Amino acid sequence: MRVTLPKNLLAERIALLERVIPSRSSNPLLTYLGLAAEKDALVLFGSNGEVDLEVRLPAQLEGEGRYLIPSQPFFQLVRSLPGETVELSLGSELALASGRFTTRLALAPMEGYPELLFPDLEGGEGAFTQRAQFLAEELQRALSQVRYAASNEEYRAIFRGVQLEFSDRGFRAVASDGYRLALFDLERPQPFTRKAVVPARSVDELVRVLRSAEGEVVLALGPGTLGLAVRQEEGALRMAVRLMEGEFPDYERVIPKEFPLKAALDVEPFREALKRVSVLADKQNHRVDLFLEEGRVLLSAEGDYGKGQEEIFVSLEGAPMSLAYNARYLLEALAPLSGRAELGFSGPTSPTLVRPLEEGGYQAVVVPLRV
Amino acid sequence: MRVTLPKNLLAERIALLERVIPSRSSNPLLTYLGLAAEKDALVLFGSNGEVDLEVRLPAQLEGEGRYLIPSQPFFQLVRSLPGETVELSLGSELALASGRFTTRLALAPMEGYPELLFPDLEGGEGAFTQRAQFLAEELQRALSQVRYAASNEEYRAIFRGVQLEFSDRGFRAVASDGYRLALFDLERPQPFTRKAVVPARSVDELVRVLRSAEGEVVLALGPGTLGLAVRQEEGALRMAVRLMEGEFPDYERVIPKEFPLKAALDVEPFREALKRVSVLADKQNHRVDLFLEEGRVLLSAEGDYGKGQEEIFVSLEGAPMSLAYNARYLLEALAPLSGRAELGFSGPTSPTLVRPLEEGGYQAVVVPLRV
Repeated sequence: MRVTLPKNLLAERIALLERVIPSRSSNPLLTYLGLAAEKDALVLFGSNGEVDLEVRLPAQLEGEGRYLIPSQPFFQLVRSLPGETVELSLGSELALASGRFTTRLALAPMEGYPELLFPDLEGGEGAFTQRAQFLAEELQRALSQVRYAASNEEYRAIFRGVQLEFSDRGFRAVASDGYRLALFDLERPQPFTRKAVVPARSVDELVRVLRSAEGEVVLALGPGTLGLAVRQEEGALRMAVRLMEGEFPDYERVIPKEFPLKAALDVEPFREALKRVSVLADKQNHRVDLFLEEGRVLLSAEGDYGKGQEEIFVSLEGAPMSLAYNARYLLEALAPLSGRAELGFSGPTSPTLVRPLEEGGYQAVVVPLRV
Repeated sequence: MRVTLPKNLLAERIALLERVIPSRSSNPLLTYLGLAAEKDALVLFGSNGEVDLEVRLPAQLEGEGRYLIPSQPFFQLVRSLPGETVELSLGSELALASGRFTTRLALAPMEGYPELLFPDLEGGEGAFTQRAQFLAEELQRALSQVRYAASNEEYRAIFRGVQLEFSDRGFRAVASDGYRLALFDLERPQPFTRKAVVPARSVDELVRVLRSAEGEVVLALGPGTLGLAVRQEEGALRMAVRLMEGEFPDYERVIPKEFPLKAALDVEPFREALKRVSVLADKQNHRVDLFLEEGRVLLSAEGDYGKGQEEIFVSLEGAPMSLAYNARYLLEALAPLSGRAELGFSGPTSPTLVRPLEEGGYQAVVVPLRV
């Protein structure tokens, strides 16, 4: 098999594979990069056992085959090759030539390499029986805005994932660590009903792929697997990630519905004041106090270094209230927002709802600290 | 004592202090930032026991005093303060106000804080009896270009420093780890004769300060101490670093003087080819082979992954030669260079000299690998 393709295209498109393919693995074959010829495309593939990825690039091809090449020297070399094109000849070894540089790399046998299954962009049967279409940018926003709320703890493993909910009411991504929760609703009725939990680290890879994509993408579910297929400017990209077992406990009941006090505020100055005041907060619980009254929030904190406070003007609706938060949780809940936001306070010891004041699918729940 | 000054000036100028002041120390007072009022300047100072630093800023001042404030919250706050100016009131505590933000920080007592001594920019007596003037940019170049060759090993501790040599022939900075050597000569006759070894990590801080400076600077030596005084656009900066004991063994004898083969080459393409070929090199010794003959260098390497080679055109003067190098050492020796360079080969097992083809104070010596 012989392949000729532009160096820059190859260098640019292997970046996502470079992230996924591990430099060490209990299955050493996973440290290799797969190369195959299919129709007019060079197919590059890799896996870390949790995330499988396949990149298709237009290339001049002769012959066919499927080969495993050592990914580490290949990734290191591709970016700095001296020529404008790269020539790859694959047989008993890989011969690479670009400009006056040549190299010969040893191959690994394909036996023992896992079979990677991906959904088709165009439809068609296969392992992925449930399919839904999204706009890349919309799906990317839904996933990336809730991901922070997933847990890092071993305890209650299901919370280390992001739950995706498909139903005829729409699509929802939701994450929680038991102390706070974030969800994002897309009003896009789904052709099937299912809940699937994706490990948060795999969500990060899905988000990266979606950022590189444009227009419509396909999300597809098979047994124990979520697949994604996206078109790119030149070529296409497909991904499959292992699902976690189980689904989230009922979280709807922690989302407050009634608010004795609501605040509408500009996110940016509120966030900045919260950051400043939290510098003085106790290093253990990061406690910042909020006192809301007469069109103002007084933020204050006190710790080993001393104390600090700042006042911000807001629009209030309801009775004055004093609350305390872990500043980090409140800052993370505000992070996806810009412009104006609404904070709905259900009480000093019951959950607070954070959401954009105008339309937007994002909602976050933060539980105040017990004073 | 009360101080008012522009937030941005303060935020910008504490960056170097932020690097020096440790977040933990066996003497907890060193984690504090010093503030003092002198004439029309706010003086900020700090030390990590190895490097002392003092920054002088124009400010509106009332009263006087010397105070230690907790550096960690202060550094965190200063950049994000909401106002254009900062007001500091120092007494039994520090009260800081900027815009609608206020904070009160606990102070530490000055007792037990080391006395910091710095050379004067203008001359005058004191602990620093030997003084020399440099251009900031020249001195910065001399120090930063040789620093890489210093050792990281505990063994032969003196090689963990950079030796500064002052004499009527000029100024030299030299570093070596016993396997390679770099030196930089400034043709600037010095008013005194002395050799002083500065720890490589302190050289990094000197270089940072010199990068922030313009025009003439003063380097001064006292007992066991090297001082630096620089002017900045607004204000001034002074530094003192502890010297290492002892001086380098005689290194002049390892610098080759006769070359059966010399190569003149463009640094950039040679460096790029060396990087590419070294990707294939053995991971232990990073060996890259050079074969020089008839206006060409053939670079080649072979390791676990396979082998690679590339050819580069050069001007040669002398008999063909085959040599092998640790690619990292050769790349580091070339790093300070651009444009055209000369490689002087004294033999396949004896030192190679690397230097710019045109004028320049830099010279590096790299010992080939034994083939």
